[in-house]
Parts: sequence; C-alpha cells; structure tokens
Amino acid sequence: MKTLKVALLGCGNVGAQVARILLEDAEMLAERSGAKLELVGIAVRNTATKRAVVIPEGLFTTDAEALVDQADIVIELLGGMEPASSLIRRALSRGASVITGNKALLAAQGPEFNVLAFESGAQLRYEAAVAGAIPILRPIYDSLSGDTITKVMGIVNGTTNFILDAMDTTGAAFADMLAEAQELGYAEADPTADVQGHDAAAKAAILASLAFQTDFDLADVHCEGITKITAEDVAAAKDAGMVIKLLAIAERGVNGIGVRVHPTLLRRTHPLAAVHGAFNAIFVEAENAGELMFYGAGAGGAPTASAVLGDTVAVARRLVTGGPLPAIALQQPAKVMDFADIATSYWISLSVSDEPGVLASITEIVAHHGVSIETLLQGGLSETEDGVAELRIVTHRSTEAALAATVKTISELAAVQEITSVLRVEGN
Amino acid sequence: MKTLKVALLGCGNVGAQVARILLEDAEMLAERSGAKLELVGIAVRNTATKRAVVIPEGLFTTDAEALVDQADIVIELLGGMEPASSLIRRALSRGASVITGNKALLAAQGPEFNVLAFESGAQLRYEAAVAGAIPILRPIYDSLSGDTITKVMGIVNGTTNFILDAMDTTGAAFADMLAEAQELGYAEADPTADVQGHDAAAKAAILASLAFQTDFDLADVHCEGITKITAEDVAAAKDAGMVIKLLAIAERGVNGIGVRVHPTLLRRTHPLAAVHGAFNAIFVEAENAGELMFYGAGAGGAPTASAVLGDTVAVARRLVTGGPLPAIALQQPAKVMDFADIATSYWISLSVSDEPGVLASITEIVAHHGVSIETLLQGGLSETEDGVAELRIVTHRSTEAALAATVKTISELAAVQEITSVLRVEGN
Repeated sequence: MKTLKVALLGCGNVGAQVARILLEDAEMLAERSGAKLELVGIAVRNTATKRAVVIPEGLFTTDAEALVDQADIVIELLGGMEPASSLIRRALSRGASVITGNKALLAAQGPEFNVLAFESGAQLRYEAAVAGAIPILRPIYDSLSGDTITKVMGIVNGTTNFILDAMDTTGAAFADMLAEAQELGYAEADPTADVQGHDAAAKAAILASLAFQTDFDLADVHCEGITKITAEDVAAAKDAGMVIKLLAIAERGVNGIGVRVHPTLLRRTHPLAAVHGAFNAIFVEAENAGELMFYGAGAGGAPTASAVLGDTVAVARRLVTGGPLPAIALQQPAKVMDFADIATSYWISLSVSDEPGVLASITEIVAHHGVSIETLLQGGLSETEDGVAELRIVTHRSTEAALAATVKTISELAAVQEITSVLRVEGN
Repeated sequence: MKTLKVALLGCGNVGAQVARILLEDAEMLAERSGAKLELVGIAVRNTATKRAVVIPEGLFTTDAEALVDQADIVIELLGGMEPASSLIRRALSRGASVITGNKALLAAQGPEFNVLAFESGAQLRYEAAVAGAIPILRPIYDSLSGDTITKVMGIVNGTTNFILDAMDTTGAAFADMLAEAQELGYAEADPTADVQGHDAAAKAAILASLAFQTDFDLADVHCEGITKITAEDVAAAKDAGMVIKLLAIAERGVNGIGVRVHPTLLRRTHPLAAVHGAFNAIFVEAENAGELMFYGAGAGGAPTASAVLGDTVAVARRLVTGGPLPAIALQQPAKVMDFADIATSYWISLSVSDEPGVLASITEIVAHHGVSIETLLQGGLSETEDGVAELRIVTHRSTEAALAATVKTISELAAVQEITSVLRVEGN
C-alpha cells in the first residue's frame, strides 16, 4: 500500500482533532483511501503550547516551510492571511494537494489558488470552509452535476443563529442574547465579524462560487448584520407566523448572480426556520431537483475535522487511482448582479398619525413605485400611543431599488412618525 | 471529445424526464462530464404509448437486450423484478455501467449486482433509489469517508409523511387523510406498500448498507406501518410537544446493526419534525460530524431524474478520466442485530381504573423489568369515563425485549382497562 505524507499546519481547536483522528483512525482511513496517511509533522508557532489532545511531541515543528516541502497533502488550519497564504501557494506550486478551512483567505484569494492548483495538477479542497461538517461542496459538484442550481440560501453563521434563535425563544433583546452567547462560548469577545455579517459574507462568496461555477469575492457580496434587530421585530415576526434568520443568499437573476447577506423573515413552515441554536443549514433550489436542504454543525473542533478528513480521503483516493479533476477547474469570471436589481419582498413596520387619508397616501406611494402589496395590517403587537397607529406592510417581490425608493418616499410623509423596521422576506 | 452511448430502459414518469434532460441539456452535460452523452435508444414495451415529453420516435425500441449490448451506460428505470434484473446483469457482465432507481430490486439483489460490477470493473450507482433527489449516497461515501456513522434515521416515504403531516395539521383520522392522499395522487389505489412500511423497509436496507458498508436485505428489516395510528395518538403527541413520523432507522448497537421501520414520536424541535408534506429527509449521526440532515423531494419525475443524471455525469467522468472505485467494492456481510436487543424508548398510553394502588403497581412492574420512567402523566387529552383514569408513560431507553415484556405485564393487571397505544420515541 502506498504511503502519502500529510503535513498539518496549525494545531488549534480543529487541528488538534484532525491530528487525533489521523493517529487514532489510521487503519480505517487507510482502508477507505487506499493509501497509508502518514502524519509527518504539525507546524505550530510554539511547540511547548499545551494541546487539548495528546499528540507525540516529536511531530511538532516551527519550520512550516520545510514541512510543506516534504508533504503530498497539506492541511492548512492556521486561519488568517499570513503565513497561511504563502504556505498554501508554496504547496500548490510544487504540486502538493491542499485542504483548507480558511474561509476568509479563500474569499480573498480563492481564484488565485484555483489557478495555481490547476497549473500544477494539485487538488484544492475546502469543504470545511463553509458550514463546518455539512457536506455541501460535493453534493453541489457531484450530485447536482446533471442539474442547474437557481438559488442557494444558507444559515452559515452559528453565532448569529444562536442569538436570533434565543431572541425568538425568550423574547429578550439582542444585547442580552449576545452577552449570553459570549458567556456560553458561542460568540467571541469581539463579535463584530459575526454580528455584522462579515463571516457569513465570506461564506456566501464561496457558496456562490461553487453553486454558479464562477469566482466571487467579498466585494461582490451585499452585507447587513443583525445588530439592529429588536425584540419588537422578533415578536412581530412571531405574531405573523414567521422567524428572523441571518441568511446568505446567492441567486440567479435576470442579468447575473446576486449575492447578499441580511436578516430575513421566513415562514415558520420553511425548513430553514427549524434550524435552531448554533446549527447551520444550506437550502438549495435546482431546476429539476426542486428544493434541497443540508443541515448540520457549522463549527466546532470534531465536526470541522470530520469535513477536513473527508476531503483528505477524497484527495488520497485520487492520488492513488487518478480520477476526475475537482470542481475548481470549472471556475469562470463572475457576472455579479447589481444589488439594486435583485428581486425580493419587504416587510415594513411604521407608526403613523391616526388621521383620515394616511392609508390612501401610503398605498398610492407603493403603487406609484410599481410595487404591489401582499398584506397590510393595522395594529400588530406594539402598544400604540394616543393618536398613533401601527402599520405593517408586506410587499410582493420587486427590485431592491423600487422597494428602497418606496420606503424613502413613505418616510417623508408628514403623517409618518417612524419607520420602525424594514426587513426582507424569503420563501413561499 | 469522447462519446459515451447511453441506453435508457423505461420511459415512465422518471424515464421521460431523464430523456428530456439528456436531449435538452446535452451541451451542459458534455461540459460537466467531459464526454458527449449520446442517448442511443429507449427500451419500452409499446413504442406507440403517448409520453409526457416530446421524444424523437426513432429512439424507441422494444428490443431492450440489443440496446443494452451497444451501450456504455445503461439507465434502468423499468421498476419491478423482471426484465430489469436480467438486463442489469447483462449490462454489468459486459462491463457497461448501470444507473438504477429500482429500490425493490436493489434491496433483493443488490449484493449480487455489486459482485458482478466489481468483477467486470463496471460502475453501479443508485442515488435515485433512496429519497429521490436528495444526495445521500455520495455524502455518505465521500464526505463522511473520514468519519464513522453511528445512526441513520430517515423519512423515506413521501406518501406516509403526507398522511401523518395532514393528520397532524387537521386532526383528521388516518382513513380520511389516506383518501385525500389518493385523491391528490400522493398515494396509489392500493396503498399497501406505502402504509404498511414495505417501501420504507426496502430503502432502509439500502441506507443501512451504505451507512455501515455491509449488505442488508429486506428480511433484515423489522417493519411496522402507520395504519394503526389514530387521530387520538396524533393529538396526544401534539399535546406533548411531539409529532409522529414513519422513520427508517439503522443504528450501530452493542452486537451489530439494527434496522427497523416504525411510527416514531419526535420532539417538535427535532429537524425531522419540520419535514412536511411529501418531502423526505435523512438524519445522520456520525462520531465526529455530529448531527447532519439531508432534505428534499423524495419522488417525482424531474427530482428523481436529477439524481439519475447526477449519477450519469459521475459515471461518465470516471469513464473519461479513470478514478476511485465506487462504494460497492467495500461491502461486507452484515451483522444484523436481533430486534429484541435494540435500545429505544416507549410511549405507553393506557386507561386504568381510578383506584388506590394502581400507579404503584404499574411503576413496580416497570422497575421490575429494569426499565426506568422518564415521565408519567395522569390525565392527558382523552375524556375520562367515570372511574377511569388516562395514563401516559414515557420510558428511558431500554431494550425492545424489556419494553415489550413490560407492556405485556402491565396489560395483564386487573386495573388496566386498555393499552390505547404503544409508540417508540427517538431524538433527545
């Protein structure tokens, strides 16, 4: 049986689990991949650091470049830009295959890595970069290879899903549930990347690239976070049989692919509405397959390691027997759709002076912008002050440009006291 | 570019869609597979039958054997045992690859087909046989190749899920919702195979074979249908925050793999509880990945055709470039666990005479069988007659044998008037 040399870069939460599985399950991995996977070294900054898992000390090295130069397969779990980027380029350039879970790096430099891999015949795989343990790369590339994907919607950030789910269950405010998420270790001390949607945006770029076989990067993604979602928004959604989720959405439109991340209202019967806690899920619509969903743990040491090892076995199988090239050879430049052209529907909550003619003025403005109303509700959950009425409008699908203009014109009406929330609605 | 000859056997609901996609999307399929996929003929019983899709008449033939003998790839969508079995054997024996969605045939003869394919180097793929469009074969074989699956639970029959979901939504009786399913075309005139669980059992055998890399057949599956589920069962479950689903379950136990199909209570927060209508979903537990779920359309012409074409492209890619052998080479004889040894928990509803000491007698019987009680509820949904109390017991996990013996002993108590229902509970 052939032996393949595996270099591990990084030994944090995920890296330690990958090392453990490579050592503990060596026999199973050899049986499944057709080659002995020999862990030849683990590059770390400090060899003396204590790890969560017992690993033979002789495996640790601080010389990552020398380690990369002797490997057939390089598993990069350092995170961040450097030295991860240089080490991946070094590996791919000499024809070593690379497995990485580094979403920020992939979103920024993925297309360049693809070219390097293609030129040297190396394999580049990154199932772990999107939605942790959930198999999504291969189902899209393999299982849906005879179909055409039209839309992908994903809950791809566990921290924000935990917070929104907790707000939905308890009725508490965003700040309180963020604090709880931090206490439980679901959110970091600086939660910016999660709650502002930046982490989800990086994953959206990768997902869109896979689903539509084009190269998207972070700059192509319209991004809004969840910091402005109030307990009142969540309660009003609940009252309407809906739930608020932070979704990464990539969709084929009239003149390209639109990619966006924003808080989104979904009916409670939608499969994504049932994704609780820190779990992730990717909902896919394809021409023939219809609606599919892939659900699982989006983070965590062992789950992410499972995805890394799945990639490792796949890479090893191909190194042993030869076989089809991975998806990356198919990438083409992206045609990014202008955000203003994306079709969506709006949920608008506002408080207005309770006087004759207000409703007529508002419905006239909506119609004037070519938008049609699905439901208009007077009352709702909020308590009304004297002479103030609460309104909730849900529109049919229209362009972002028309909807934004509608909201702007409504907000300028003298009778409108406040636009309390504007949220997008997805699903049927 | 290489040309691969594709023979289609059968032109029913799925076959017609496969033919349409092969003809309409020929360019996309060639680009993705690296070979031109030429549909050389469609074997049908009667060439004059009207089809749902416009297909050039010259493609139809009644000589299936001659068609198989000229093909590189044979797509079998005839259903039933013969001539499907002989034609698949004929194709595999001469080294032609086979794609089939014939679950009943695979459950009965899959192991023999695997041997034939392995010997001739042909590929055998059957993603469409389990849960229609849902990618499950490849995620299990590829994505989880670095992990160990411990349990698979699936909603794999759309008809019974439609009926149970409708009972849950409307509160109606089984017979009424079966009639509605028949009217809407979700259930056949003779619904036996669906409502008795036989269709789900065939899929359970295939799923268990994939997940545990062993050969199971129909005889290894313990099977109970949904015909005895009453509106009262559904209402009581709802009252307890649960829902009843027909699940196919394959699980690694102490002394082998247990495979079973039966109505199952799940908490409403469980991801499988959110699978509505005729949709299917497969829930997978793996040692490192944790909980995963795959959701989608379990039947229908176009969705099933999507899975068939995904397999076709994968087979073509390997015929063009070479590559790893499919999963079938890994099959080993199954170690089937005795049903009596399977660990599960029971939900027992019963009516008892409202007299002192009854509760004590029952809890003593339960304890005597080594079973422990999770909840005991007096009252519940049913209206009580004079002097009759309704009890509901949910047990912790124990063996089937101990639980069945417990129910038998309880039923023999003089104070017990009726055991109204016994259901198994899954999920945490």
